[in-house]
Amino acid sequence: MSGKFISLEGGEGAGKSTHSRRLASWLHEQEIAVVATREPGGTAGADAIRALLLDDDVPLSAMAEAHLFAAARADHVESLIRPALEKGQWIICDRFVDSSIVYQGIAGGLGASVVRGINETALNGCWPDLTLLLRTGAQIGAERALARDGDENDRFSIRDLSFHEAVAGGFELVAAAEPERFAIIDAEQPVDAVTEAICNAVRERLL
Amino acid sequence: MSGKFISLEGGEGAGKSTHSRRLASWLHEQEIAVVATREPGGTAGADAIRALLLDDDVPLSAMAEAHLFAAARADHVESLIRPALEKGQWIICDRFVDSSIVYQGIAGGLGASVVRGINETALNGCWPDLTLLLRTGAQIGAERALARDGDENDRFSIRDLSFHEAVAGGFELVAAAEPERFAIIDAEQPVDAVTEAICNAVRERLL
Repeated sequence: MSGKFISLEGGEGAGKSTHSRRLASWLHEQEIAVVATREPGGTAGADAIRALLLDDDVPLSAMAEAHLFAAARADHVESLIRPALEKGQWIICDRFVDSSIVYQGIAGGLGASVVRGINETALNGCWPDLTLLLRTGAQIGAERALARDGDENDRFSIRDLSFHEAVAGGFELVAAAEPERFAIIDAEQPVDAVTEAICNAVRERLL
Repeated sequence: MSGKFISLEGGEGAGKSTHSRRLASWLHEQEIAVVATREPGGTAGADAIRALLLDDDVPLSAMAEAHLFAAARADHVESLIRPALEKGQWIICDRFVDSSIVYQGIAGGLGASVVRGINETALNGCWPDLTLLLRTGAQIGAERALARDGDENDRFSIRDLSFHEAVAGGFELVAAAEPERFAIIDAEQPVDAVTEAICNAVRERLL
């Protein structure tokens, strides 16, 4: 039996890592074997690529960055995600392909279809069964990101408000294009209400 | 006026770096401004990716490797090759996209069309005007590669003979598919005869 693959998406500060942990705990209570992972990273190879992407001393063109994210994703899929699913384990992934489509493709200007095309080969058919879009306003995302400690404020979170707005709008576009894969969660509610909405969406779509 | 873009391809030990240097000198004598470069590498970003590719301690799936080569190539094209061509300089590149198609796509088993597709976005239209295929038998390539110093014998050159045969056959396939772009050079001749054949091909095709 194959496991289910859930990705969490949204702008900075939407609560993806908190809700990845909470969803993993809830699935565990349902006696489902869960592997929680994140992007970019998740395997030794992908972590090495992540380090390169986060290194401000290595200048890279936008297209090179898109291929680096795809390279990390290809390794993550082949070495961790697909083998776990084949063993019947569920995957919870904090950011996945839609972050590339939105950040590099839409907000970054490479084009959504170009970035989607680059990632088609990296995924090799391994698309999420369900993508939870944690929706927050761009203003809230930008403020939450800036309120964090310095370590977290890498070059992917310190941007101006217009960038956060392009990201928020981009996620709406990709979600609208695939309503059967996406569930949109209002992430501006109190955290327990967000957890409840997430568990309800998973129950309705996958259980 | 736009410059011309020449790539040199072939298996290990075919003489690509020697003949890149010799061709650069000859073009220089023709009063053509030349930039000689190589792959993987050629820019700071691409060199950082090259270091990752050559690091045996970082395990990577074949698909991840193909995207890493494409990432390095995208940076190389955008940061060095395209700007030089736009200034009217010629580019001589020791290995380019056909090495990926042959090594990862054909000999490595990912499929030529998959690897070509990955690279279409990385090149963004910047294909070589002329690709010189330095043809040697697989046996000679394998022996020359093994006869080199240890530093050069990275994980891309130490392979068994059947791999070198697959590489040699792969280059024949890609060259046969695009005869207008490829010139096949017999690289088993004495080195001066190879140089002469290369200069003749460049004169006929590009001058």
